[in-house]
Amino acid sequence: MKYSINYLSLNNKDLVVNETIFHNANGYIGIRNNFEEAYPSGYNTVRGSYINAFYDFAEMKQAENFYGLANEKQTMLNVADTQGVKLFLGDEQFNLWKGSIISAKRTLDMDCGFTERYIVWRSPMGKEVEIIIRRLTSFVRLPLFLIDYSVKALNFSDNLYFVSVHLGAVMNHANPDDPRLAAESARYIIPGKVHVEETASFITSSTSKSGLKLCTGVDHVIMSGGHFECNSFAEKESAWTEIKIGIKEGEKAGFCKYSVFTDSLRYADCEKSASEELAKAVATGPLEIYREQKEYLDKFWDNAFLKIEGNERLNMALNYNMYQLLQSAGKESKSSVGAKGLSGEGYEGHYFWDTEMYIEPFFNLTVPEISKNLVSFRYSILDEARKNARLLGHKQGALFSWRTIMGKESSGFFPAGSAQYHISGDIAWSIVSYYFASGDYGFIVEKGAEMIFEIARLWIDAGTWYKGQFCIHCVTGPDEYTCMVNNNYYTNLSAKFSLYWAVRFYSLLKDSGDIEALAERIKLCPEELEEFSRAEKAVYLPYDENQKLNPQDDSFLSKKKWDLSATPKEKFPLLLHYHPLHLYRYQVCKQADTVLAHFIFEDAQSEETIRNSFLYYEGITTHDSSLSACIFSIVASKLKLYEKAYKYFGNSAMLDLYDLHNNTKDGIHTANMGGAWMAIVYGFAGLRIKEDGISLAPWIPQKWESLCFRINYRGSRIQLKIEKSRVTIVLLNGAEKEIKVYGKPYTLKDRLEIPVNYSEPA
Amino acid sequence: MKYSINYLSLNNKDLVVNETIFHNANGYIGIRNNFEEAYPSGYNTVRGSYINAFYDFAEMKQAENFYGLANEKQTMLNVADTQGVKLFLGDEQFNLWKGSIISAKRTLDMDCGFTERYIVWRSPMGKEVEIIIRRLTSFVRLPLFLIDYSVKALNFSDNLYFVSVHLGAVMNHANPDDPRLAAESARYIIPGKVHVEETASFITSSTSKSGLKLCTGVDHVIMSGGHFECNSFAEKESAWTEIKIGIKEGEKAGFCKYSVFTDSLRYADCEKSASEELAKAVATGPLEIYREQKEYLDKFWDNAFLKIEGNERLNMALNYNMYQLLQSAGKESKSSVGAKGLSGEGYEGHYFWDTEMYIEPFFNLTVPEISKNLVSFRYSILDEARKNARLLGHKQGALFSWRTIMGKESSGFFPAGSAQYHISGDIAWSIVSYYFASGDYGFIVEKGAEMIFEIARLWIDAGTWYKGQFCIHCVTGPDEYTCMVNNNYYTNLSAKFSLYWAVRFYSLLKDSGDIEALAERIKLCPEELEEFSRAEKAVYLPYDENQKLNPQDDSFLSKKKWDLSATPKEKFPLLLHYHPLHLYRYQVCKQADTVLAHFIFEDAQSEETIRNSFLYYEGITTHDSSLSACIFSIVASKLKLYEKAYKYFGNSAMLDLYDLHNNTKDGIHTANMGGAWMAIVYGFAGLRIKEDGISLAPWIPQKWESLCFRINYRGSRIQLKIEKSRVTIVLLNGAEKEIKVYGKPYTLKDRLEIPVNYSEPA
Repeated sequence: MKYSINYLSLNNKDLVVNETIFHNANGYIGIRNNFEEAYPSGYNTVRGSYINAFYDFAEMKQAENFYGLANEKQTMLNVADTQGVKLFLGDEQFNLWKGSIISAKRTLDMDCGFTERYIVWRSPMGKEVEIIIRRLTSFVRLPLFLIDYSVKALNFSDNLYFVSVHLGAVMNHANPDDPRLAAESARYIIPGKVHVEETASFITSSTSKSGLKLCTGVDHVIMSGGHFECNSFAEKESAWTEIKIGIKEGEKAGFCKYSVFTDSLRYADCEKSASEELAKAVATGPLEIYREQKEYLDKFWDNAFLKIEGNERLNMALNYNMYQLLQSAGKESKSSVGAKGLSGEGYEGHYFWDTEMYIEPFFNLTVPEISKNLVSFRYSILDEARKNARLLGHKQGALFSWRTIMGKESSGFFPAGSAQYHISGDIAWSIVSYYFASGDYGFIVEKGAEMIFEIARLWIDAGTWYKGQFCIHCVTGPDEYTCMVNNNYYTNLSAKFSLYWAVRFYSLLKDSGDIEALAERIKLCPEELEEFSRAEKAVYLPYDENQKLNPQDDSFLSKKKWDLSATPKEKFPLLLHYHPLHLYRYQVCKQADTVLAHFIFEDAQSEETIRNSFLYYEGITTHDSSLSACIFSIVASKLKLYEKAYKYFGNSAMLDLYDLHNNTKDGIHTANMGGAWMAIVYGFAGLRIKEDGISLAPWIPQKWESLCFRINYRGSRIQLKIEKSRVTIVLLNGAEKEIKVYGKPYTLKDRLEIPVNYSEPA
Repeated sequence: MKYSINYLSLNNKDLVVNETIFHNANGYIGIRNNFEEAYPSGYNTVRGSYINAFYDFAEMKQAENFYGLANEKQTMLNVADTQGVKLFLGDEQFNLWKGSIISAKRTLDMDCGFTERYIVWRSPMGKEVEIIIRRLTSFVRLPLFLIDYSVKALNFSDNLYFVSVHLGAVMNHANPDDPRLAAESARYIIPGKVHVEETASFITSSTSKSGLKLCTGVDHVIMSGGHFECNSFAEKESAWTEIKIGIKEGEKAGFCKYSVFTDSLRYADCEKSASEELAKAVATGPLEIYREQKEYLDKFWDNAFLKIEGNERLNMALNYNMYQLLQSAGKESKSSVGAKGLSGEGYEGHYFWDTEMYIEPFFNLTVPEISKNLVSFRYSILDEARKNARLLGHKQGALFSWRTIMGKESSGFFPAGSAQYHISGDIAWSIVSYYFASGDYGFIVEKGAEMIFEIARLWIDAGTWYKGQFCIHCVTGPDEYTCMVNNNYYTNLSAKFSLYWAVRFYSLLKDSGDIEALAERIKLCPEELEEFSRAEKAVYLPYDENQKLNPQDDSFLSKKKWDLSATPKEKFPLLLHYHPLHLYRYQVCKQADTVLAHFIFEDAQSEETIRNSFLYYEGITTHDSSLSACIFSIVASKLKLYEKAYKYFGNSAMLDLYDLHNNTKDGIHTANMGGAWMAIVYGFAGLRIKEDGISLAPWIPQKWESLCFRINYRGSRIQLKIEKSRVTIVLLNGAEKEIKVYGKPYTLKDRLEIPVNYSEPA
């Protein structure tokens, strides 16, 4: 599947958005799709190369400091820039802003895993060239970024000169006016050694405070039958390579620029590894690199297959989103998924609850190994979460930081940051969800149970008994337009879930003889389990008798209702136009909060209550967060509010490809991408995986002909095709499975065909 | 009355505390009592000269920025240092750390209004001198700071050399680890012109951002019969004067150093004014300056007279406190009273609610003109309060900034800053209190009513109707260990009070024909008044039926109780040892909150409820704020809990003089000083001034023989003397007054003698 755009106009805004849209990443490195030759001066650009989990500490002074507040954050670094290539046709420099563009197209090939820039250009002196630049970050060789630069002389013969740059001195980007971006542009990475070896160059850099190292190696291989020269040069903080190739009319010439990035988080000797990885890549050559990339993606698409017939735009958007999730997710347990993946500097490369609640559900059912890595990453920072809990005054348990890279809190405003205790419950939920989908009991024994026990301990310490009920005060739920409240419905359910599974896993591990070593190690005693159980049963869940719905928190319904219909469009997102204190005083939601609880913990309430809640919160939710519309879509599907389900899904699915939030320039919205997939799988298909198995309740929008997708459930690959009249469930491979459809149990041996049971209003 | 200490030991900690304790101020300028000759290097000092309301803007970057948050604060400036005098006896420099101290005493003479340093010192070479250095900031000539430096040669004849410094290049002090201090040391004031004229020097400085100017002028007059030379020199940012005086054994010699500070907030041409003020002071001479200072203070003490017989330590502390209040309070309507007065840089010279609730009560009854200035100051920033309300999202009304100098918010953490809406209610209360005490109806017409109408409008906009009651969500009450709550009892009562008085003043002004111009100017219509009235009657006041007390806010009683007895001493103040989020989750109070309401708005509840509340909050209040103990004392007096009343009073009264909070080095605690006075007048004497008049309910601690003090009530000066068996009330001058004692009405014509009606447990 290919996503292409023409770009005969060089609108700055579009250029910056497309740097994001066409970025190349593989979960380890991410390179924005900047023009190799750069834009003219005066154009905005976010030129960046990023490494997942590679960070520096940055000062984050509090305006008024209090005990325990974060005064330092981690920040993802913009690392060495290896994108630069300048091209000269004889003495004329290739520049799209001069001469004329005859044809220009940018393509993301999601089957083959590369992006391509195709240009036919006439120089001011009349030389015509066809330029094809392919870029690839290898899923098979994580350190590798390849630029395959090819030029065809259409009407002339001359020398081509290339200057290929390897720039060590780079800075992060900043915007002091947007709380979602870093406020200051700073130099975090300091180039140390720069050296060249014939056609190659190496730069070793160190971070300013975090003590990390990075080596970048760049080499060039000329693809041309004719005469050429290629020499590299070094200066203080960068290197460059000059290439001269003779070209004849009608011929092609060019070169491959291989870049490798090896950091000290993953490579014991990053200089040696850079040299080796670079040599291996050069020896392998582009054809084999393309082939293995395609092979990797063939497997991915075979597992993650999804097709919407009847709306190609949405079909494209969904597949684009899935591809981006694959590009964004860490491929080992040393990293997670940034809020913007590796596509930009928005949210500074931080990991939030997004990974657990919006991204892992996708990988659980398509590439469960990635999910396992992501939950394992949380285990790798469990000790930091324990320390964070102590810092916040808890005598026991683990409280994961709201935004982080290496585990420490990077949120500068604790009422909407550290106070979001639900992140620990979300992590518990993700562990259980991974376990449900994979059946990976070994992971629970090794890492999962320990995390859940520590999270349960946190809830016990954070909560308090009041009038016989277990209450949790002064936390912030998912909705950041209401902060530091008592008994946030979502948070309390999340705590209840964690406590339940702490007890459940304890009993499972005990039955299997796996509990002793762990209990000994973390000093877990049976009395604690009793306390978990007692609290779990008594968790207080706010409920309003009059309106028969769940208030977002104890006092939510007593506040003034915000009149969204009277709020001018330009005032959205509200957080950029209203003081937080003003927002907090109103019933107004940035995003799904109670509605999210009605999806994640749907069995806690009757359908009637969920319907009342949904309709209530719909009237006061701005969806200023990209994590919102998809959840509303899922719950609307559940409630058979089909039109709404479809509307919310569309808003969600196309967010980045059509820049609906007007900030795709800062990076893709990975959580929303997962959310859009969830809106299909959990929403339209009504999929649920619970302790007692898998179930479906499919419907399909009238405008579509069919919806087909595949999942991997406990080792069995299942394809589901929903058409207007029937749903066809095929067991592609693996063991047979019990499956409920519309509440009725079936055994999926080979294939099932079941009538679709819904009536969408015309 | 004199407060003296010996200082034969030169302990650094004591030295820094005494810089505060003995500082000189007059409400306009404040000079810390640093040694003229400085300490040796390596000693800590906060060397400072301050001007009330003279500020610069300082960057205050938010760690995570949101709409409307303050990114800039005002900060009081450390201005030109004119304290410096170095003394040489021949070629030996006077230095208390060398040679030997035979005698050394520091004295604050509160009757005469100067401080004195008395030293008998023997130099390493054996020269003995008696040095007397008197310092005075004139209450009569506000720009004037005088150093009267006298040396007696006890056993030698030689030349004395003085180097008197006038230093333009000064910085503010800082401590990044204490939220109550500025976090960064910065250069805010930039010396421009420096010039000398014979024995005098002038430095004109400008602030870096606020556009203010300051001129400091220094002149020297030699007091000696013998030969002398005196010459001034200028360099880039400072000036100095060299003085040589011949002295004979047994003789005295010395000089007066006159400094004047004229700023552009008060003086149109500050250079010209500096020159004039300096010339006038020099022409007046020290004797007349001492005389007029004494005259000013005679009048002050005549009005503010207070004497405790039976505890000289407390008597001293109380009188010291009153003197400091006089030193601290702005003497025109361009300034107020900093939380640390003009004695140090703690809280950066900011004005808080302290002025209205803890300091004006003292001035209302002793120097009402000062109170009038202070409430007028708030009127001068009313427009900024209107703007602040808009910034916080309010369509109408005025919300005063929580901490400020020129009106804009300087609080960096809005949950414990801007969210303290009660400050607007406090200002309303102070206006009404001033009106009650003075009967100054003219002020209400001119300024008071407008402020109260705008404050009432704010409450209407901030509040909301819920189940027939008027509620106020998401504010922070006085207790900063609980933030952003619903229906803080104190705040709601404060709103009720403002609304009541908006209606009341409207009607008063209407009856007198004074409303029209004002109503026209601020577009106040009768419908608004109806709304005020409706809301006032329906203000919701949380009350717990079970425990028969007022919860601090809606959810306070449902939180865990903090176990203060189990908290180690070194963990206080809690704010320096626990994360705010942890504190917020507990029933634990930094200070009186509901208990303050039970004093200020005592008629809202029965004595039984107040007693229950008092005992309840007593168990969970840390008194980490210096504004707390005095209020507990007052309410304990009201409840006849005499032992407690006395204990809380003592903690409050002696705070600074005995450095009980271990931070007097950063400045005096002005609010606490007013509070200690209130604990006597409102507590022990049971004084109340309400709309229906003045009343008393005196008692006296068993350990005291008598308590005597004077007040000024609506033009009549009244002296009250409480002895164990009787209270004697004398009308010193002015019209006769109706007065209630123990609930019984009397007419005070000349003198009343009434038996004291209380029984303190032995």
